[in-house]
Amino acid sequence: MRDVSQGATIWLTGLPSSGKTTLAYALEKKFIEAGQLVEVLDSDVIRRGLTSDLGLSPEDRRTNVARIGFVADLLSRNGVVALAPVIAPYRDARDAVRELHGDRFVEVHIATPVELCAERDVKGLYALQREGKLTGLTGVDDPYEEPLHPEVTLDTSGMTLDESVEVLWQALHR
Amino acid sequence: MRDVSQGATIWLTGLPSSGKTTLAYALEKKFIEAGQLVEVLDSDVIRRGLTSDLGLSPEDRRTNVARIGFVADLLSRNGVVALAPVIAPYRDARDAVRELHGDRFVEVHIATPVELCAERDVKGLYALQREGKLTGLTGVDDPYEEPLHPEVTLDTSGMTLDESVEVLWQALHR
Repeated sequence: MRDVSQGATIWLTGLPSSGKTTLAYALEKKFIEAGQLVEVLDSDVIRRGLTSDLGLSPEDRRTNVARIGFVADLLSRNGVVALAPVIAPYRDARDAVRELHGDRFVEVHIATPVELCAERDVKGLYALQREGKLTGLTGVDDPYEEPLHPEVTLDTSGMTLDESVEVLWQALHR
Repeated sequence: MRDVSQGATIWLTGLPSSGKTTLAYALEKKFIEAGQLVEVLDSDVIRRGLTSDLGLSPEDRRTNVARIGFVADLLSRNGVVALAPVIAPYRDARDAVRELHGDRFVEVHIATPVELCAERDVKGLYALQREGKLTGLTGVDDPYEEPLHPEVTLDTSGMTLDESVEVLWQALHR
């Protein structure tokens, strides 16, 4: 794997509540401690500046991934580690971002099983879906296309956050 | 003025054909020669990745400036010089980008008179407007709100490109 300290985009893809955002901010802390320039391109933060016009339609999900990918490319080619904890459910949309980056793209599949994601349910989305108050939940009643060849796969089941971060950090630096 | 080599957004605002984009790419060359990380956030390039949905309505012009400003902020706070040769006709939209940046924002007014811009007419827009084939041309039949307190003002009349670049370079480093 490329030396991420030269600048890279680390895309954490996975289901809602799989741990993407929590892991991204924990990784950010470690990169800062290591003296590395780093940005977390959290969907909720990016929405304010770049994607407030987008909803959850397939087309809008693609555009969301494309815009975040474009910004991540600009940052990573200038030496920044861009962490993108973004569901990015479609394989071809993720692959287009990879192509834009060349070898600066690291795809991390946070492969926490849907049952555990539904149990964690950080944002209460799985509960809303069960109650019939929400549709289009990725991995439940909306598609999630797993990566075929991610650089890293991490199933956080049975791990503490610290353990997950450590495994991920090692995998990114091997 | 802040030391731009620590990262800054240099926004070149002005009328169509005032020289913004030409000057931005000439400055990019000088920053590269100086060993500085630099990106030109040219509207025509950014459109492919971030703003393909936007037209020329007032609302879309504001959104265009906001999105480019958001990206420029991310880059400049990571040590990159972000050059934005973007008309940005509305004062409040530019000021919002300035506020986002704090002291990393340098507003450069390329104050070439409209008569000279119309004579240069790099993209043929002024001719189309005169022929009645185009409306909404900034500075002619669409508003352009000049900066009140730009860090730099440059009228390129009677100067060669090399002279303009040199004046601008000195102004950015004084």
